[in-house]
Amino acid sequence: MPFQTSYMIEWGDCDEAGIVFYPRYFYWLDTTFHRWGRSLGINQRTLRATYGAVTPLMEVGATFRSPASYDDELTVHAQIDEWRDKQFRLSYRLMVGERPIAEGFERRAWAIFQDGKLRSAPIAPEFRAALEGNT
Amino acid sequence: MPFQTSYMIEWGDCDEAGIVFYPRYFYWLDTTFHRWGRSLGINQRTLRATYGAVTPLMEVGATFRSPASYDDELTVHAQIDEWRDKQFRLSYRLMVGERPIAEGFERRAWAIFQDGKLRSAPIAPEFRAALEGNT
Amino acid sequence: MPFQTSYMIEWGDCDEAGIVFYPRYFYWLDTTFHRWGRSLGINQRTLRATYGAVTPLMEVGATFRSPASYDDELTVHAQIDEWRDKQFRLSYRLMVGERPIAEGFERRAWAIFQDGKLRSAPIAPEFRAALEGNT
Amino acid sequence: MPFQTSYMIEWGDCDEAGIVFYPRYFYWLDTTFHRWGRSLGINQRTLRATYGAVTPLMEVGATFRSPASYDDELTVHAQIDEWRDKQFRLSYRLMVGERPIAEGFERRAWAIFQDGKLRSAPIAPEFRAALEGNT
Repeated sequence: MPFQTSYMIEWGDCDEAGIVFYPRYFYWLDTTFHRWGRSLGINQRTLRATYGAVTPLMEVGATFRSPASYDDELTVHAQIDEWRDKQFRLSYRLMVGERPIAEGFERRAWAIFQDGKLRSAPIAPEFRAALEGNT
Repeated sequence: MPFQTSYMIEWGDCDEAGIVFYPRYFYWLDTTFHRWGRSLGINQRTLRATYGAVTPLMEVGATFRSPASYDDELTVHAQIDEWRDKQFRLSYRLMVGERPIAEGFERRAWAIFQDGKLRSAPIAPEFRAALEGNT
Repeated sequence: MPFQTSYMIEWGDCDEAGIVFYPRYFYWLDTTFHRWGRSLGINQRTLRATYGAVTPLMEVGATFRSPASYDDELTVHAQIDEWRDKQFRLSYRLMVGERPIAEGFERRAWAIFQDGKLRSAPIAPEFRAALEGNT
Repeated sequence: MPFQTSYMIEWGDCDEAGIVFYPRYFYWLDTTFHRWGRSLGINQRTLRATYGAVTPLMEVGATFRSPASYDDELTVHAQIDEWRDKQFRLSYRLMVGERPIAEGFERRAWAIFQDGKLRSAPIAPEFRAALEGNT
């Protein structure tokens, strides 16, 4: 089940060249993952309370197609394109209207606290089912 | 004419104490001013193209009532509570539902480029009329 | 005992007008307070571990004198200009070389967790002594 | 010629989990590129004034090894590991002391304004020579 959300690009998101300062794109990727979880009733606190789990980032990347600027409305499409035992990979497409702005991905681990240390662990089936839309 | 807009407080807006990292509130104040302008068809580029003007910040402040955290929806109410010849003052009330979070203000100048320097100048009457809702 | 630290203003700190996006100044005020504590061996974790205390912001403000831009080195001078029983007030002067950029202040409370709630409490004398340079 | 710089990780750089909010790492990558240029007397304004050029980001990525937290000093090592005709690729290693935190890269284009549009163009030999340390 893909997920979609959007953001107004604001004055404070842009740099002197008048385009988005690129680290902001990662704020939007991360936020999209959180909004997706929120839309399913799963936020970071729920994850921790229910499963003792967090979803730390292992790897991230983006390719930029076209600059975006303030007053543009950025739409972010997210989907999960890989489930492994202890990791999953989100891919993102960023658009302003019909114009492709960037593609990105995040590879996240499922990790639980054990003896005061964070260890990777098998993803809770309910979490996967929720993101797959099978709840 | 007051203006109102809202923001989801996201994971990346909060600090280790689990509450909004306070400089983010000023991003929202500034953004609210820009959204207000946008809602009236006036953005920073329009201001510059039409009047050769910018609205630099002279003074800003905020008082905090209650912490806000991620997954809270922050509503910002803005109004202009003073018009001077070359300056105006915006006041802001920030709420999460019925809970007051903060009050803030921005004092901004009207400034134009003249001989390569930025000088304060009388506020364009059309700008004032637009924000007063008399356009 | 006043405290002083400095920051390079970087590309990503500036907006389309080529000057510092103002919420960044508050990142530097907050960071200066933390650096001051760190220079005395007191960070937020120490505060919490030793006193069960945090120092939430009650009020903040700034007045801007002159714009600063990227590649400028910003020096921030901090001092405490008021100690109350349960609050203290920091004032800041921001300079680029001899040029005044802004003045600001932060009013912070001393607060401890009690029965799961955060309550203001008398400032620990050791904390005050450390910032006054009398340790 | 590799380049190296460092950053204090500050309270405001971390999220509720007490570790760096990952988009901040990209602020540090971007800033390291700018600091490198600055150390050679080349900043974005110089680039534009001398060559009419900018260096837009085409692609970026990072792999995370270990979390970093506030009060850590982050050292970033940068080098250019590929020069193409119209593009170059920077790679970064991020360390806290001897502990690897992350590796990252940026692929940047050389672009000039022509007829009001931004077009990729052959990298100025002087820019390449400066970064290679052959000036």
